[in-house]
Amino acid sequence: VRHVVILAGGSGTRLWPASRQKHPKQLLPLVGGKTLLGAAVKRGRMIGDVTIVTAESQRLATERLGLDTAIIAEPIGRNTAPAIGLAAAKLAERDPDAVLVILPADQHVADEQGLVRALELLCEHVERTDAIGTVGITVTRPETGFGYLHVGAAGGGVVPVQRFVEKPDRATAERYAASGEYLWNAGMFVASAKRLLAELDAHAPAIGSGVREIAAGRAKAADVYPTLPSISIDHAVMERATGVVTVPASVGWDDVGSWAALAAIAPAHGGNVVAGRAQAIALDGAHNIYYADDDTVIATVGLENYVVVKSGNAVLVLPRDRAQDVRQVVDALAARKLEEYL
Amino acid sequence: VRHVVILAGGSGTRLWPASRQKHPKQLLPLVGGKTLLGAAVKRGRMIGDVTIVTAESQRLATERLGLDTAIIAEPIGRNTAPAIGLAAAKLAERDPDAVLVILPADQHVADEQGLVRALELLCEHVERTDAIGTVGITVTRPETGFGYLHVGAAGGGVVPVQRFVEKPDRATAERYAASGEYLWNAGMFVASAKRLLAELDAHAPAIGSGVREIAAGRAKAADVYPTLPSISIDHAVMERATGVVTVPASVGWDDVGSWAALAAIAPAHGGNVVAGRAQAIALDGAHNIYYADDDTVIATVGLENYVVVKSGNAVLVLPRDRAQDVRQVVDALAARKLEEYL
Repeated sequence: VRHVVILAGGSGTRLWPASRQKHPKQLLPLVGGKTLLGAAVKRGRMIGDVTIVTAESQRLATERLGLDTAIIAEPIGRNTAPAIGLAAAKLAERDPDAVLVILPADQHVADEQGLVRALELLCEHVERTDAIGTVGITVTRPETGFGYLHVGAAGGGVVPVQRFVEKPDRATAERYAASGEYLWNAGMFVASAKRLLAELDAHAPAIGSGVREIAAGRAKAADVYPTLPSISIDHAVMERATGVVTVPASVGWDDVGSWAALAAIAPAHGGNVVAGRAQAIALDGAHNIYYADDDTVIATVGLENYVVVKSGNAVLVLPRDRAQDVRQVVDALAARKLEEYL
Repeated sequence: VRHVVILAGGSGTRLWPASRQKHPKQLLPLVGGKTLLGAAVKRGRMIGDVTIVTAESQRLATERLGLDTAIIAEPIGRNTAPAIGLAAAKLAERDPDAVLVILPADQHVADEQGLVRALELLCEHVERTDAIGTVGITVTRPETGFGYLHVGAAGGGVVPVQRFVEKPDRATAERYAASGEYLWNAGMFVASAKRLLAELDAHAPAIGSGVREIAAGRAKAADVYPTLPSISIDHAVMERATGVVTVPASVGWDDVGSWAALAAIAPAHGGNVVAGRAQAIALDGAHNIYYADDDTVIATVGLENYVVVKSGNAVLVLPRDRAQDVRQVVDALAARKLEEYL
């Protein structure tokens, strides 16, 4: 049976101040009043039963969304390999033949039907061959913020992944984008629970045994998790496993990883992007991104290519092309022990 | 007897969004938790009994400050000539020999004692000669936002004003500042109530008779005010009266007319000015002015020489040297009928 596992435990630092430690980005009504997690669940339901994996600290806020799904809460974050492993082990307890469709919670997809078709194609292939499948997004810009899949000169349908590639530098990203031999690694995977656990046993045995002990009720997550390595599923499994396949997809996908990415998914008004519940007044300037968590009016004069955010007890102003530097702001707040803003 | 009349009816548009129609700038704890009006009252008490002239719409907010002064409320704003005229007429009813010290509510004075000495010198002169006196602030920069007094090569003490000069352009302001023959017109006047009313009768008779009718109880302010011209005391009286004198004063005076002016009066931290109750994080940038009406943190990256304000349901970002353009923002809000932000 197909099960959809949505990874919703991230903290989303780069969307501070909207995203906070206890209220991360996937829980925010960023665009059109809808949360990214809600959209991911809706998407997942087209494929199978949905389980959300989140952090214990976010469980309450997640439950409050009323999405009516199973929830697995991790006591502490250990990156995606333990999260996926725990979901695989728990689902395998109930359904030994479970096929898992792993979806991150913080992504935007314009063509939901197209994505569902790609995932179903992968499911059918995985059910037939027990391969590991991953969605490969058609490259539309030389993005340095994503990992890539090298597939060579691929046609449509299921194709083998030759190599997982880390986030490239600018020149390399431009080469990848020009070559047509690469796809974006969107972090969406399809595999049987059995295969995932076997791969973890082979490449990250502490995780493999740890999550099985928890799922079987022989150990408590709170005791096991601190002993697990913090590692992504890409590093732990995907880059090492053989027979990984992908389906190239052009589905208007984007990772909502930073404020700059909002521009790709929110409607523009007169050259500016206005998201959340903000009102915006832009005098002598354009190409700005405005976000407010309430009906705050954000007025700017002479500002161009900036992000201006008001959320809760914080205001953030920074250039669009420095959207990644929100991390530095968060670090500065932590260094000054201004925890009430984190 | 000396009476201090504090003009507190302005709307302070250029300090939006902190300053709102019903809660203008003189009522804001802009610096050090103190309101400009409270500081003006304290200053006034060193000289005489204090009366505040404000707008009916601001009466309640003014009373709430608990300053324990007389309050005259105008039904609608008609600039400073009617406001001063009404105060003069009302005080003259009770005290025909009243000498009035007129002080704007929205100014910052570093050297309070120095200002009080200058005003007392003017009072003594006015009581002896029935002249009209005005404080002349020593020019410290080629400011285009103030009017000037031409006094020629003046020494200390009481000197005649040769001419009132309107706000100059940049080149003229630089010439004034270099010449040493000019002082800033700070809008602080000293004159007997009788003389003020006589000048209004001579140069603005509708105001002279209107305020007297109101003060004598023969007409209602609400009926009279709509018929009065909206005109400043400078235009109505000062520029036309003869025998106006001034006392040059170097008292750390500044008009808190715009966000840029905050820099002159609020403490700087690491090259930035942080006022109100704001916390500020400035990465890769300096010479910014931050203000928040609560403990909002304002974080900026790469911003230099900007003003960032959060107050109530609004955020404002604009270059320091365009601080005057707040008016355009307010106009844009009004044009869009977004009254809840005005």
